[in-house]
Amino acid sequence: MSLSNNKIKYIRSLKEKKLRSEHHTFVAEGTKLVFDLLETCRCQLVAALPETLAAHPDIRAEEIVVASASELKKATLLATAPQIIAIFYQPEQDVEKYQFGEKLSLVLDGIQDPGNVGTIIRIADWFGIDHVVCSPDTADLFNPKTVQATMGAIARIRVSYTDIGVFLRKYSHLPIYGTFLDGKNIYHEELSDYGLIVMGSEGKGIRKEAAESISRRLFIPNFPLSRTTSESLNVAAATAIVCSEFRRRKL
Amino acid sequence: MSLSNNKIKYIRSLKEKKLRSEHHTFVAEGTKLVFDLLETCRCQLVAALPETLAAHPDIRAEEIVVASASELKKATLLATAPQIIAIFYQPEQDVEKYQFGEKLSLVLDGIQDPGNVGTIIRIADWFGIDHVVCSPDTADLFNPKTVQATMGAIARIRVSYTDIGVFLRKYSHLPIYGTFLDGKNIYHEELSDYGLIVMGSEGKGIRKEAAESISRRLFIPNFPLSRTTSESLNVAAATAIVCSEFRRRKL
Repeated sequence: MSLSNNKIKYIRSLKEKKLRSEHHTFVAEGTKLVFDLLETCRCQLVAALPETLAAHPDIRAEEIVVASASELKKATLLATAPQIIAIFYQPEQDVEKYQFGEKLSLVLDGIQDPGNVGTIIRIADWFGIDHVVCSPDTADLFNPKTVQATMGAIARIRVSYTDIGVFLRKYSHLPIYGTFLDGKNIYHEELSDYGLIVMGSEGKGIRKEAAESISRRLFIPNFPLSRTTSESLNVAAATAIVCSEFRRRKL
Repeated sequence: MSLSNNKIKYIRSLKEKKLRSEHHTFVAEGTKLVFDLLETCRCQLVAALPETLAAHPDIRAEEIVVASASELKKATLLATAPQIIAIFYQPEQDVEKYQFGEKLSLVLDGIQDPGNVGTIIRIADWFGIDHVVCSPDTADLFNPKTVQATMGAIARIRVSYTDIGVFLRKYSHLPIYGTFLDGKNIYHEELSDYGLIVMGSEGKGIRKEAAESISRRLFIPNFPLSRTTSESLNVAAATAIVCSEFRRRKL
């Protein structure tokens, strides 16, 4: 059995959000990512080199197909062909089902670069933050670039899309943090181990509708402070520093 | 005057490292990046929309060309066409010329993704680290993806390529830091305000030849510590946290 042209076409079609939504599926590539996802997500199809399948006899998927290197090369959505490509069903993302009172969660306001969103999900995973809530105009979780940038963290972190203005108003009794140019030095502030941390896009920052609910305004100081700068940090780099600060005092 | 097909071809040819090296030039796109670079780098060519040129009558370049939106679209190396494209001469990068004793510098060991290298240069800029020294197999500074990811920091940070094994041995009298899985909790260690910080690639970590010179082994703990994890952080995210820690106690 080999990877048919129809299946190659199907895999490639999932580059498009419209088709991912229609099929309710997404693509993951590479052994680390696919095997991380196999632990938590229902799998529709695995296509892999014979030796990769032989090394993993216990893969659970609706369909498992032996593929040649050249078939994987035709199917891949990446620059270089992997040993394994899989299609997973999208996990449910109903933000209404979850409670946000007891732990820290991240809220993303219009982060449009899929690589940044994937990297942020990976940061959340490292720092034990289970939930990332995104505005509808944040990059799609199932965009292949987002999926790949999570390096498997997508299998462990819950990611929901919702109107974050409404969402933040609903949770306004919690401490809600955000970074602003006129915020307080994050290194000196007391930071709770529950609540919501809002990260805004590099272009627009945190927009008004989200900013209105933020009770604790933080700032990552540049060094030296005396150097006035018009510069900013990449949003994933800023998220890494913010999450590190929330956890540092407990580590 | 408009952007000729020959010039469009020349701009597009600079996607290739070989041609960048031959011409000793590189491409930058977008107003923020181009105007940051105009302050420090010698400029060979500026091509921009008439309104962009009208708004900036004092651009200093060997040649300034009015371009139409469709010409810029043909010339761009990015996904969406900018208002302005410029070609700059590569600044000199002779690591032998600089001293590394008094300040902090970053050393990159085989970081292959240009986006990560650009983001790291931007982090260095934020935290007042003037110099980034790279192994020869680190992504090229003048790769258009690196240039864009620096968001202008490329104009302010010195970046050199050299054999970092030799380089680190030469500076082994300085404190040399690196992150390792068996390193010491970075949040508790004393960190100097001079010396070298080595960052390794996500796949290979810091390689033996560089690791041998590292006297201070650090670790960014995951949270909670009790959770054993095979995960790692994206190298730019890790660099952001490390640089933040070196500066935090002084901010």
